[in-house]
Amino acid sequence: MTLSEFDLIDRFFHRCGAARDDVVLGVGDDAALLRVPAGTELALTLDTLVEGVHFLPGSDPRSLGHKVLAVSLSDLAAMGAEPAWATLALTLPESDATWLEAFSGGFCRLAREFGVQLVGGDTTRGPLALSVEAKGLVPIGRALRRAGAQAGDLIVVSGVLGDAGLALRALRDGLEVDDLDYLRGRLERPQPRLALGRSLRGLVSAAIDISDGLVADLGHILDSSGVGAIVELGRLPCSKPLSAYLARSGDWSLPLSAGDDYELCFTLPSSRLAVLEQLAEDLPCRITCIGEITREPGLHIRSADGSDYRSLSSGYDHFAA
Amino acid sequence: MTLSEFDLIDRFFHRCGAARDDVVLGVGDDAALLRVPAGTELALTLDTLVEGVHFLPGSDPRSLGHKVLAVSLSDLAAMGAEPAWATLALTLPESDATWLEAFSGGFCRLAREFGVQLVGGDTTRGPLALSVEAKGLVPIGRALRRAGAQAGDLIVVSGVLGDAGLALRALRDGLEVDDLDYLRGRLERPQPRLALGRSLRGLVSAAIDISDGLVADLGHILDSSGVGAIVELGRLPCSKPLSAYLARSGDWSLPLSAGDDYELCFTLPSSRLAVLEQLAEDLPCRITCIGEITREPGLHIRSADGSDYRSLSSGYDHFAA
Repeated sequence: MTLSEFDLIDRFFHRCGAARDDVVLGVGDDAALLRVPAGTELALTLDTLVEGVHFLPGSDPRSLGHKVLAVSLSDLAAMGAEPAWATLALTLPESDATWLEAFSGGFCRLAREFGVQLVGGDTTRGPLALSVEAKGLVPIGRALRRAGAQAGDLIVVSGVLGDAGLALRALRDGLEVDDLDYLRGRLERPQPRLALGRSLRGLVSAAIDISDGLVADLGHILDSSGVGAIVELGRLPCSKPLSAYLARSGDWSLPLSAGDDYELCFTLPSSRLAVLEQLAEDLPCRITCIGEITREPGLHIRSADGSDYRSLSSGYDHFAA
Repeated sequence: MTLSEFDLIDRFFHRCGAARDDVVLGVGDDAALLRVPAGTELALTLDTLVEGVHFLPGSDPRSLGHKVLAVSLSDLAAMGAEPAWATLALTLPESDATWLEAFSGGFCRLAREFGVQLVGGDTTRGPLALSVEAKGLVPIGRALRRAGAQAGDLIVVSGVLGDAGLALRALRDGLEVDDLDYLRGRLERPQPRLALGRSLRGLVSAAIDISDGLVADLGHILDSSGVGAIVELGRLPCSKPLSAYLARSGDWSLPLSAGDDYELCFTLPSSRLAVLEQLAEDLPCRITCIGEITREPGLHIRSADGSDYRSLSSGYDHFAA
């Protein structure tokens, strides 16, 4: 089925997500017009997913619609921002109404769930690629940043790590795993930690979301803050299927650097741990202290016996050899 | 030469465009943080250019950098907005430092010229595609819109039409033309009509930029406003090389529907024409009245002898057969 570009946008995206009072003009003019409330800063984050690079060819379009928005909302979570609006650049090899209906279904459902309105976009013909820019609001001066971690701060992560990497190995390479349905959900339908991010305002010294893997993303905090860290391998939070795989393989690269986790990693003075733990009781995800910030630069990962497991310095990099 | 993704972004885009006071946090965290002044609305517009669809394979990267930003700024011009910030999603088959230097050179130079700061982006590997979201500011309630044209209003366009289409025919199909350098500049380095757009606030009843061709874009004004129009072929503003081609070929499709013009098309009550003409004396582009809005829907294009030349209803559409 072939639809014209304009029909297609109208049909699947015209009223997508929440209906917000602060949208003066949404999809359908040269630009969207938005009102940013006084006392807030605007947080913007842009992410692109390319077929064959960030997702497998033939991926379920409903999940893709969810994921491309979730990935950007995860960045807003890491800033402690409240999501508000999104724009979508969709490059498609052909206009397939069935694909588009499923894709927009996944996208718009997640948008509604988090109060986000789709306010603009562009649809072009070409190899399948999806770019979303999520826009959020945060009270002036209260955003979480990568810079600010201090020697002695605790390092904490939300949820569990490595599931998405294990799912990818199962789906792409045929690796046998326990509970593929659960793992696949973690790869294809990550849950942005927005409530956690907001509750961390004023509490943490630095924060980031784990998209490129713990080592790479914690590395950004360390670089921005001019500090180092010790992480204990035995404290990394892992799901049952991943723990089973780790027990069989001893391959710790998944929770350390596979990426696509979309959990938050943050640092805070140990004196605030009790406040954090109390706060965490009301949140849908666990939080786990995995290590400590050090004065000396470098990231040291320690085995359970206290020996140096590895000192990795970079995670996933799209252009690495 | 291969650079890591992060080095590459740092090297070519870290300080790109103007240095603005309202940027709290630019490139290099999970999200950019921006301050939107009280009394203004935020205007957002997103455009994607794909190699082989929107530009010829092997196009000059400096011109591409210019064009991808110019195209988005043109949308802000059509809203009467003041440009402020931009984000860039860059999908590249490989990280080529020479290409990137030229691309960022063209992009950042235009950004500086119009006071725009690049505040974020994403770089991914894949088939060459460029998405820019330009963000501008406009006083509350003063943005120009597509809806609002009234029967009896004059239809005005800036600059000249059809040059980019003629350049494309020359470059892609080998058509012989006069003054290819000039035409190529019009295709590859369009000038967004930002000063004109701002000066039209409070003066015009509707406005749009001509990206998909006069017929398609004027068509959007007509649809949004619930009116029709008569356009006189003989009044379409054309450059000398295009006029020479028209005299030889009689092919009016270029100024009517080839697109890529990035001129403004707007409507206003005839009582305001004198104000517009005075204002136009201070602008670097000509403005030309090409027709009139009618109560009856439909777009009628009249030949010089008064006969109906054509009644087209759609312009360039990426998914049209």
